[in-house]
Amino acid sequence: MYTVHGMRASGNCYKVQLLLDQLGIDYRWVETDVAGGQTRTPAFAALNANGKVPVLQLDDGRCLAESNAILCYLAEGTPYLSADRWQRAGALQWMFFEQYSHEPAIAVARFIARWLPLDHPRHADLPALRERGHAALRVMERHLSEHAWFSGVSYGVADIALFAYTHCAPDGGIELDAYAQLRAWLDRVRAQPGFTAMQA
Amino acid sequence: MYTVHGMRASGNCYKVQLLLDQLGIDYRWVETDVAGGQTRTPAFAALNANGKVPVLQLDDGRCLAESNAILCYLAEGTPYLSADRWQRAGALQWMFFEQYSHEPAIAVARFIARWLPLDHPRHADLPALRERGHAALRVMERHLSEHAWFSGVSYGVADIALFAYTHCAPDGGIELDAYAQLRAWLDRVRAQPGFTAMQA
Repeated sequence: MYTVHGMRASGNCYKVQLLLDQLGIDYRWVETDVAGGQTRTPAFAALNANGKVPVLQLDDGRCLAESNAILCYLAEGTPYLSADRWQRAGALQWMFFEQYSHEPAIAVARFIARWLPLDHPRHADLPALRERGHAALRVMERHLSEHAWFSGVSYGVADIALFAYTHCAPDGGIELDAYAQLRAWLDRVRAQPGFTAMQA
Repeated sequence: MYTVHGMRASGNCYKVQLLLDQLGIDYRWVETDVAGGQTRTPAFAALNANGKVPVLQLDDGRCLAESNAILCYLAEGTPYLSADRWQRAGALQWMFFEQYSHEPAIAVARFIARWLPLDHPRHADLPALRERGHAALRVMERHLSEHAWFSGVSYGVADIALFAYTHCAPDGGIELDAYAQLRAWLDRVRAQPGFTAMQA
């Protein structure tokens, strides 16, 4: 049985939960206290030297880090990852977009707005983060004006990756009202078989 | 024939050049003036709405963005991307690590130190970027103490992705002297058949 070392409030960890739920795969979830420094211990470094959740651990002890790499691993051979070379490359394109241009703005804005005290100096970063977040959402909106999904011809790993922090962008003060296509896509994701909501 | 829209001084673009050279694939290179705003034009947005190089364009006009997605696309079915599910997931793990934990520190430090005037306010970011860059290099050094490559049992896409900005980290004031394993790995990459250096 897979073990997921994760944190329920993390969108990156939620991606793994959602795909495992949709695949109907049993797993053990080990809640990890990131704020308390649990990812900075030697024991955790043996799971992921980069000190981040989620980590997928196999029964034989082997570990895989990076949420989007875990999604690809779990989805291999399933309808959530196309067997077509071009479609798969397109899904990867959106997953790298998510980690480079989307998550560092939208997830970080959410973290600051939701968990840091109001007098914390990082609140000063919010305007720039929100601007970058909206830039990423505009790129997504443009894609959705011509395509139903980010993973190719059907729902899959890139949709899961992008759903994770897009649906809770308003937590960071990044409102979705201006993005009609994007809100319709969020609803299509929520309507997928086996969909489960983020538990935070 | 493939067209690469790129910028020679960009490590992300160099990744694509290096793999195409190693695969012996002919391509047309369209040098793109990023500093001059060429990636912010409507014409470029039609290639990549996210306004970034590199972009790989096929003869039929289809475009693929995100350097590491392009690497996976080009390497499919070649020795540069393993056919084994676990090995491939491991390569992807390192490619997402590169885009999230490595490039935003090491490439950005290089950009500021090499291209921005000394009185530019972003020079104040360098100490924090260098600290994050060294943290990423320590994670790589630890991996290399037990493994020869980042792509699995042999050289491949994750090594190309990580070589691109690691080998020129000193441009950004991130010295490599402390990382013996890492310097030996850089030499192993340079010794690979078809290796070509970055032209910047």
